[in-house]
Amino acid sequence: MSVTAAKGFVASGVHCGIRREKPDLAVIRSLPRATGTAMFTVNRMQAAPVKVSKEHLDVAEPQAVVVNSGIANAATGSRGERDARTTACGAAGLLMLHPTEVLVLSTGVIGQPLPLDRVLTGLASGVRALSAEGGVDAAEAILTTDTCTKLAAANGPGFAVGGMAKGSGMIHPNLATMLAVLTTDYPLASGEAIEFLRPAVDASFNSISIDGECSTNDAVVLLANGASNVERTPASDEAFALALRRVCADLSEQIVADGEGATVMAEIVVQGAATEPEAKAIARRIATSSLVKTALFGHDANWGRVLAAAGSAPFNGGYAQLDPARLTLRYGGITVLSGGEVIAVEPEVSGPSCTIELDLGLGDGRASYLTSDLSYDYVRINADYRT
Amino acid sequence: MSVTAAKGFVASGVHCGIRREKPDLAVIRSLPRATGTAMFTVNRMQAAPVKVSKEHLDVAEPQAVVVNSGIANAATGSRGERDARTTACGAAGLLMLHPTEVLVLSTGVIGQPLPLDRVLTGLASGVRALSAEGGVDAAEAILTTDTCTKLAAANGPGFAVGGMAKGSGMIHPNLATMLAVLTTDYPLASGEAIEFLRPAVDASFNSISIDGECSTNDAVVLLANGASNVERTPASDEAFALALRRVCADLSEQIVADGEGATVMAEIVVQGAATEPEAKAIARRIATSSLVKTALFGHDANWGRVLAAAGSAPFNGGYAQLDPARLTLRYGGITVLSGGEVIAVEPEVSGPSCTIELDLGLGDGRASYLTSDLSYDYVRINADYRT
Repeated sequence: MSVTAAKGFVASGVHCGIRREKPDLAVIRSLPRATGTAMFTVNRMQAAPVKVSKEHLDVAEPQAVVVNSGIANAATGSRGERDARTTACGAAGLLMLHPTEVLVLSTGVIGQPLPLDRVLTGLASGVRALSAEGGVDAAEAILTTDTCTKLAAANGPGFAVGGMAKGSGMIHPNLATMLAVLTTDYPLASGEAIEFLRPAVDASFNSISIDGECSTNDAVVLLANGASNVERTPASDEAFALALRRVCADLSEQIVADGEGATVMAEIVVQGAATEPEAKAIARRIATSSLVKTALFGHDANWGRVLAAAGSAPFNGGYAQLDPARLTLRYGGITVLSGGEVIAVEPEVSGPSCTIELDLGLGDGRASYLTSDLSYDYVRINADYRT
Repeated sequence: MSVTAAKGFVASGVHCGIRREKPDLAVIRSLPRATGTAMFTVNRMQAAPVKVSKEHLDVAEPQAVVVNSGIANAATGSRGERDARTTACGAAGLLMLHPTEVLVLSTGVIGQPLPLDRVLTGLASGVRALSAEGGVDAAEAILTTDTCTKLAAANGPGFAVGGMAKGSGMIHPNLATMLAVLTTDYPLASGEAIEFLRPAVDASFNSISIDGECSTNDAVVLLANGASNVERTPASDEAFALALRRVCADLSEQIVADGEGATVMAEIVVQGAATEPEAKAIARRIATSSLVKTALFGHDANWGRVLAAAGSAPFNGGYAQLDPARLTLRYGGITVLSGGEVIAVEPEVSGPSCTIELDLGLGDGRASYLTSDLSYDYVRINADYRT
């Protein structure tokens, strides 16, 4: 499991002193030369480490990743960028890499500067501690108030894909940062990683929602070092794509299940939309609706809220197409609406999971989204972080 | 106050039996011939009464408005449309108007049919009860779980503008419906009402948020009957526009203050945006962020959340422009960020209101938004409606 599931990767997680007692610094490194890529938050308030990592990816293949938790190094101005660069330089020196071969990621409080001395001292311990068994330690060091580590791995014929993630669980920090680091010993040529990563992320990390918030630090990294020495064929490429999707989906589900205050997990399935982007817009709008999410918490199939959300899904400056007379809605497996006419008013909803299926009857667009409920605990966690 | 503040309007609020004991049917009528207009929800799941009222406005000047609470007549298919038309016909018969001169509005549970017999019987009582003192009764009959009536009036030289509204407060119904009916004895020619109503609504009802939800039934109606007999001049037009804006702003503030579970009211002011639509997109994103709203509830100036929300404001299929290095943020009057650099980390926030001012330093775009906090009570109200 985790980032050391695939051959040729070492990792560690240590305590450097940003957080009081918990491990707060992870290092992941590929031993053979790797190729890699990353996808970052689209938030315009990108944190300093996101900006610096993007610059590094533009000029070099990533060989190592450094992640700190506790402080996001976001909204930290010019000092924040210097600190992120210095962190990459420090790691590069210890790992005998070029600074641009190191990606830096941060998660935690916004608006506070990194304690750079502690980070640099911690990096020395972190690099010393690197081992092929260090994946779990690394996964622990990137958590904030997640209640458990998020690890996954999948095997293909002769190769492996591993990964770790942290989700939207934070009390002290200001933001729900989603971070994931994925590693594989499958051989990829330079520039290929993004072709595999993008569809896997779209179907997983980009299809979940805890509270509709988009962080300044979200990042997903993929490193591929070819240490499996498998022969590539179209079939093996397909097996790799599948394994990568499975690891991403597995980590995504763990993130939603550990969402702040979550008691119910719901899968929103939208089909029959005019286009696929519209299906996604509608699924996302339902998955992020406060009214839908509080109803899930109350185990109350307020399906009118689903329709109201579907009818107001922002799309291309307007709203996604929807014809009330063509809608079919199944809530928890019960058909409540068919061809726009009411079939059943109050389906039973209970248990820790629920499926909401909306067919728009317009075309072939299809998308699904995982979401959690909006509970008292979500409010408590996010309102009372000082107590 | 209310819809009978202006000359020549009568109104009533009666109990017709949709709801158990509370008044649930309001009638508003202009005695002199009126001109008028309405603005409706942009939700694609428009309720039957919205569809029917739009058709009526296309062919006739509205003379009367019928509003029922308790059932939204939304997602009710072909029967819902028939019921809305029959309601308008019934009122028209009693009021000696053409059916297309009657607007019908509904608020309440989605997916249930109107009890048409009760509505038609209630209309007879409602029309008998019409009086120039009936404005408050009408305002009571349109409430769902609002905790108080929302009334406003403003006088110009020789004329008056009055209004009533209901806000986003509902336990039993499935949706937060915002309804407002505005009346004036200022003389307007046919087709003019919308020119005055649109800017007033944009600056008020379209600039508030309780939970970012957009209902299937939202509507704002304006009737103008000229009963004041004032002489129109450019100056009187300006006075009328101002009075209308004041009534809309007053009702909007009452809606936010009575928002579900609201304990804090916050004004979000965005300036220096590249364009005004972008300022509005950013203000709206901040005002609807669950993280910003839970922080308000906790009296916790988590200003990083404001920046993260601002950086992810959807605009034209992408995100509104923002340059982190040019931001200035004042939270509760304290400058926390200037030119992208941190000035103060933890401003004090207390009391029932708060101002959040973000200057983007890019252009002249300016917008403001009123919002409330996200509290335990919001979750309780929306999760536990059956208890």
